[in-house]
Amino acid sequence: MTVSNEVNDALSRFKASYRKSQALNYASSIMFWDASTGAPKSGADVRSEAVGVISGYNFKNFFNAQMGADLELLTAHRESLDKLDQISVKKAKKQYDQLMKVPPELYEAYSAFVSKSTMVWEEAKAASDFAMMQPYYDQILSYLKEFAEIRGSEGHVYNLYLDNFEEGMTIEQLDVFFEGLRARIVPLLKRVMDSDATVDDSFLRRDYPVDAQAELSETLLETIGFDLSKGLFKESEHPFTIGIDVDDVRLTTHYYENDVVSGMLSTIHEGGHGIYEQNFDRSLKGTPLASAASSGVHESQSRIFENNFARSKAFLSHLFKTMQARFETQLVDVSFDAFYAAMNKVTPSLIRTEADELTYSLHVMLRYEIERGLFEGSIQIADLPAVWREKMKGYLGIEPEDDRTGVLQDVHWGEGLFGYFPTYVIGTALAAQLEHYMRKDIDVDAHLSKGEFAPMKAWLTEKIHRHGSVYTPNELVELATGEPLNSQYYCDYLEKKYSEIYKLS
Amino acid sequence: MTVSNEVNDALSRFKASYRKSQALNYASSIMFWDASTGAPKSGADVRSEAVGVISGYNFKNFFNAQMGADLELLTAHRESLDKLDQISVKKAKKQYDQLMKVPPELYEAYSAFVSKSTMVWEEAKAASDFAMMQPYYDQILSYLKEFAEIRGSEGHVYNLYLDNFEEGMTIEQLDVFFEGLRARIVPLLKRVMDSDATVDDSFLRRDYPVDAQAELSETLLETIGFDLSKGLFKESEHPFTIGIDVDDVRLTTHYYENDVVSGMLSTIHEGGHGIYEQNFDRSLKGTPLASAASSGVHESQSRIFENNFARSKAFLSHLFKTMQARFETQLVDVSFDAFYAAMNKVTPSLIRTEADELTYSLHVMLRYEIERGLFEGSIQIADLPAVWREKMKGYLGIEPEDDRTGVLQDVHWGEGLFGYFPTYVIGTALAAQLEHYMRKDIDVDAHLSKGEFAPMKAWLTEKIHRHGSVYTPNELVELATGEPLNSQYYCDYLEKKYSEIYKLS
Repeated sequence: MTVSNEVNDALSRFKASYRKSQALNYASSIMFWDASTGAPKSGADVRSEAVGVISGYNFKNFFNAQMGADLELLTAHRESLDKLDQISVKKAKKQYDQLMKVPPELYEAYSAFVSKSTMVWEEAKAASDFAMMQPYYDQILSYLKEFAEIRGSEGHVYNLYLDNFEEGMTIEQLDVFFEGLRARIVPLLKRVMDSDATVDDSFLRRDYPVDAQAELSETLLETIGFDLSKGLFKESEHPFTIGIDVDDVRLTTHYYENDVVSGMLSTIHEGGHGIYEQNFDRSLKGTPLASAASSGVHESQSRIFENNFARSKAFLSHLFKTMQARFETQLVDVSFDAFYAAMNKVTPSLIRTEADELTYSLHVMLRYEIERGLFEGSIQIADLPAVWREKMKGYLGIEPEDDRTGVLQDVHWGEGLFGYFPTYVIGTALAAQLEHYMRKDIDVDAHLSKGEFAPMKAWLTEKIHRHGSVYTPNELVELATGEPLNSQYYCDYLEKKYSEIYKLS
Repeated sequence: MTVSNEVNDALSRFKASYRKSQALNYASSIMFWDASTGAPKSGADVRSEAVGVISGYNFKNFFNAQMGADLELLTAHRESLDKLDQISVKKAKKQYDQLMKVPPELYEAYSAFVSKSTMVWEEAKAASDFAMMQPYYDQILSYLKEFAEIRGSEGHVYNLYLDNFEEGMTIEQLDVFFEGLRARIVPLLKRVMDSDATVDDSFLRRDYPVDAQAELSETLLETIGFDLSKGLFKESEHPFTIGIDVDDVRLTTHYYENDVVSGMLSTIHEGGHGIYEQNFDRSLKGTPLASAASSGVHESQSRIFENNFARSKAFLSHLFKTMQARFETQLVDVSFDAFYAAMNKVTPSLIRTEADELTYSLHVMLRYEIERGLFEGSIQIADLPAVWREKMKGYLGIEPEDDRTGVLQDVHWGEGLFGYFPTYVIGTALAAQLEHYMRKDIDVDAHLSKGEFAPMKAWLTEKIHRHGSVYTPNELVELATGEPLNSQYYCDYLEKKYSEIYKLS
């Protein structure tokens, strides 16, 4: 067989294996969707067995000697592949090599441990008892350090875990980024808290029937440009988006009778994720590149719809009329100015997921500093509750009274997810950067005040969506905005918005 | 290794493989459920790829050399297995041997052909054009005769296909059974049609809002004893039941605004199937024996709830009050006698799925005679439309004007499903036989008139449900009623019911 034939065969096997993995992922995704949107609890044991079996098939389909040899050959002859195949092979090889270095029994032990740890976290959080989780966090951190050693990371160990979610992101880049945020957000928050302006948002917590909220949410989802004919929209305990394929993107929200904002903004947030997943270029369909560039880029698409668009004065002026018509009695005594301020009220709070736009980054910064410290050894797991309280006090001026509303509030660490938190703020800041450049091309406010999203959606599709994961996040940001990720636009955005609302001089 | 160790290992592998196939079936079932109850049409291509990949894994998981050797060994040492394992192994060996005799390329060609044929059937039915389907029916019949030859069937070839759905059922037994039905149902129908009594059911086709129908259906499902906490109930184009596990049984119905009966009886019919699936003994959970004894026995459970219970005078007296309260305006001018008669109106019609209780068997008998004739060679595919018209005329006194309402109405033959139709009537007759013996133990009417189903459900669970597929259908019927399947009880039931409604002397 000629080399060229061998390469062709390897590429065919690689592609066939990807299609198989896509089919298995389809099954897993549908089982997850089903479990989250109605499956009877009583079937949980059969389901979890099925999920395990499918993921076992998926593992074997990719991590096998033939695939290793094929990736080796394809990498050696990469110049003979077309550009997109080169990128797919490169990503697959990286993933393959990383996992193949880890002895299977170690990886299995870790997977089992993390699964147990996630369950213990639920109990520990309910009991608000950090001591229950301490040995699990300790062990997970040991595992992660061991993996890093096996993989032979260069530079800071934490970089390996940042790279898992944000390809190419480093602690060096993030330190600068967060320092930029810290320098401007901390003083801005202080000025907001010291201002005399008071914002009342109690009317947003009146009785808003869930059925009416659901109708509004569905309308909003269509308004922002999510194609409901190629997806599903349901309710679940925790809102999420699952992009099964460009032609099947599903998302959920959750309504609260006495909170009209939560469900509505969750819908728009997930809608932003969903619009990204629906608009990968169709030429990428069925390839590994029909996926987001990174977690941070994904988050930028949810945040730009949720924050930059949906909480803007322009769009809220449009939304306010819609809501006054739909919720006449609840909003009869409310002025637009009061509504706009309430939708953007700043309240330092203990829980990240309930944070407003201004304080949100501080919640994440605190976690970033802790993760960094844990990998460096400057923070010990045992000290987490104390460190947490101290940093909360420093950044937000408040302290949790218990672990449930403190260090145990997020599931991430118990699941072994280190390096993920920063992507939330990377996305939020990137949203502001994208908006900045978008405004050079589009009169965003003019459209938003009429409830039009099509031009902005088209801009985002052109700059971000269609590229899938053809580019690394850093490449994509440069391509879309002409410069690397920069905290300045986000800070400008926050200062402008909150100076006006809180009448800062 | 000792023989006993080898047998233990083979048994472990056999059980592990079954658990894997159960997990893969779980994934397939959820994908089917999802596709039927809301998945976006646009995702059909990814879904069908996923369904194919999962079914490929399922095939390889069972049909491989190791499994063949294990089943051989386990069969040779069956006396050392416990009783339930013996039955599981016997069933698996039969299935394995049957398929293994067929060359894989022949089986694949057949599968592809049937998939194509099913699509052609849709077009042919829409176009009402038998000629489009004729070559497909011809080819499918050739395939089935070839398979039968390869498998080396003894006796009538059709027996092989009957056995696929009704283990142990033979043409010899069915001839007697259908002759028993024919001898009494044909003259009974003639007397009904000749009677002066007229039954008006137009009020059942008034405007019944779908929401109210849905509430009623959900109540009825609970009333008959389906455990909604261990299942799901939704709407779909065609009602169906899917028993994923005793702890996860799902069913659907379909409502029509101008037909209050269809959705309600579909719900109860599927509910009967669902109750069967929910009540396999828990000791069978996770084994191949947690499944129905046969298609006919399954149908007996849907039919006994739908016909013997729900269309009975006793239960309808209860239901009529509920419905009068819920549909006040629609039923204000209707008496109970009129309601009862309307719910049991006899109208010879062209379409099997719309047939009433009395004419239903005749639709199936016609199909049985045709299938039998096709396998024997006494009927040719080319003659089907003419034979169909002739038999319809003979049994029901009406003739279809086109193929759509005639020979093309059912999907079965185009899917290669020969031998399935008889199970509909086997189930219906078995329902009457079970009811007959149940009435010796329980005052069925007293319970039904109060809307109580618990004692009858418990009786059926004791006699039928809990046994899963531990027994063959013939064994199970003998065990439950003390005699083999007998058409007499069904005929008695029909004669009694329709003599009264149509005032036959």
